[in-house]
Amino acid sequence: MAFEQLEKIKSLAIVGATGLVGREFLTILEEARIRIPNIKLLASERSAGTKIEFGGTELTVETLKPESFDGVEAAFFALPDKEVTAKFVPEATSRGCLVFDDSNTYRMQDDVPLVVPQVNGTKLKDFKGKIISTPNCSTTPVAMALKPLLDSYGLKRVIISTYQSVSGAGKRATEELSSQCASLLNGKETTNEVFPHQIAFNLIPRIGSVTETGYTDEETKVANELRKILDQPNLAVSATAVRVPTFCAHGVSVHVELERDFDKIETIRELMETFPGLRVLDQPASDIYPTNREAVGSNETFVGRIRRDMSTSQGITFWVMTDNLRKGAALNILEMAETYYGYLYSH
Amino acid sequence: MAFEQLEKIKSLAIVGATGLVGREFLTILEEARIRIPNIKLLASERSAGTKIEFGGTELTVETLKPESFDGVEAAFFALPDKEVTAKFVPEATSRGCLVFDDSNTYRMQDDVPLVVPQVNGTKLKDFKGKIISTPNCSTTPVAMALKPLLDSYGLKRVIISTYQSVSGAGKRATEELSSQCASLLNGKETTNEVFPHQIAFNLIPRIGSVTETGYTDEETKVANELRKILDQPNLAVSATAVRVPTFCAHGVSVHVELERDFDKIETIRELMETFPGLRVLDQPASDIYPTNREAVGSNETFVGRIRRDMSTSQGITFWVMTDNLRKGAALNILEMAETYYGYLYSH
Repeated sequence: MAFEQLEKIKSLAIVGATGLVGREFLTILEEARIRIPNIKLLASERSAGTKIEFGGTELTVETLKPESFDGVEAAFFALPDKEVTAKFVPEATSRGCLVFDDSNTYRMQDDVPLVVPQVNGTKLKDFKGKIISTPNCSTTPVAMALKPLLDSYGLKRVIISTYQSVSGAGKRATEELSSQCASLLNGKETTNEVFPHQIAFNLIPRIGSVTETGYTDEETKVANELRKILDQPNLAVSATAVRVPTFCAHGVSVHVELERDFDKIETIRELMETFPGLRVLDQPASDIYPTNREAVGSNETFVGRIRRDMSTSQGITFWVMTDNLRKGAALNILEMAETYYGYLYSH
Repeated sequence: MAFEQLEKIKSLAIVGATGLVGREFLTILEEARIRIPNIKLLASERSAGTKIEFGGTELTVETLKPESFDGVEAAFFALPDKEVTAKFVPEATSRGCLVFDDSNTYRMQDDVPLVVPQVNGTKLKDFKGKIISTPNCSTTPVAMALKPLLDSYGLKRVIISTYQSVSGAGKRATEELSSQCASLLNGKETTNEVFPHQIAFNLIPRIGSVTETGYTDEETKVANELRKILDQPNLAVSATAVRVPTFCAHGVSVHVELERDFDKIETIRELMETFPGLRVLDQPASDIYPTNREAVGSNETFVGRIRRDMSTSQGITFWVMTDNLRKGAALNILEMAETYYGYLYSH
């Protein structure tokens, strides 16, 4: 997606600017050579004063306060703390600021669009509210991959197992992985603060709090968010979310049962290949398939290992990867803003 | 499982003794304080002469030759090379030696039992043949977890996503992971020889060659082997096998559809808990669930995250982990031998 509308934002705040997602906004904007005249970087008091290079100038991070949003047209929120989000989003909107939020806080509210622009971007047309949410970093790539299947064949049931990198848990989580690896390779013991167990060379099959169904809230989010984004309120979804010792990009193993059968797997591959933002890497015999190395730093959602599910009559199985800080977070917000302002200025 | 019969083996050969699985046989036997009077360690000429401590003595690895099996009662085969296996297994059996084989070579042959003792150990009763196969390292833990469900509710469909450690690919693979991690943490480039891509901090969603169905042969093996072990020739199985950057122990996310419904999830948990060799670690809210750290070096197959599958009417979802070198390979062979000789000497 080209960013032609973003430069029309008169003043922008990036909230949580020193975090991994916060910095990714700037990286993507710089790559796309987007100039926004007035960018304000906001973070907790601890990070205030941090200098960040952007577009040839140096920006100074300011302390996040209610009045930070005075005169700010739009804000991209990427805060790790739910309570801080819940406090400052209303401060922003009450000052007339349009909030694009990365958190879970507002996603399932009826009056808040939950958007993957390529999938349901039309939700942003004539939108008059003040909060727009971006989905969970595992939901977005799966929604991207499912949409062309939904449109052509209908969806009956989706089974998901995630392979989520540590950057989904923030900057301290990435530091924990590297320091633990270094310790272990030097024959030393490790300590863990961010994760409940060692994450280096280990798998942690729990992300988020545990609900009474036995699913974690990460797993529940993926199911509920997919239903909302795809506008399939009764879609059967079961997810298992696992943290794996990779730094960036999330992998997802997806098994889908379709409403109607397809003729051949090449048709599915073509459908996915032509869907905007999806890129098919699917020549496994030549070792061409999505890996973290492929996905990190890319704006695309990669799909591979596409095959007929041999365990059911109308099923497809595939592997999805995307950069969780990009399409899983910052990029999707930029694309949502681009889409929103595109509609706004087309009137 | 206690090892009471193994000491009755008059002479034993361990073939592939310097590999990861080969050494694991000795580690487990030492832990269990099993004395086998005459153990011969066999490997390729390159490894011949290697000294290995065992039971207070030092054994010297000998070059694998046809006549190595003269007078040998039983042999545990754990060779990385299919051609070497296919050459030497017949040399052993033609000399009257009973072969327990870790490779894929004979598993699907009708006259070769494919055994997980806790699941289908009775196949070894009155067995008169000369080759017994142990399943793929991802198949065994899943078969263990499915067996109590099969017995009580019947199985309709099984969907599997694996998280396989590098030790499943042998010793050089574990060296590749550690050297790549060290290089990357020191800001250096990596090279890869064992895996087709960097494995450090990366996911490789392909294990084994790619078949015409689009599934890899690792994925096909898991399906076919589960059907054979569980004696469910029509069981619907779909597997996705992914290599992850962990050293040892394989994780598997399993979604099962049952033939008949169950009353409550506690019943399932109790069924699994009482199944021999399975250990339920399932208090996710307290961060008690199977991880690699838990599984490595243990003889048990761990199950956790057991919950009703919300996407279907009679489904269960859970997470399994086991040490792929132990229950996934060497331990299962030792347990097969124990079971076989138990039947033999009970007559």
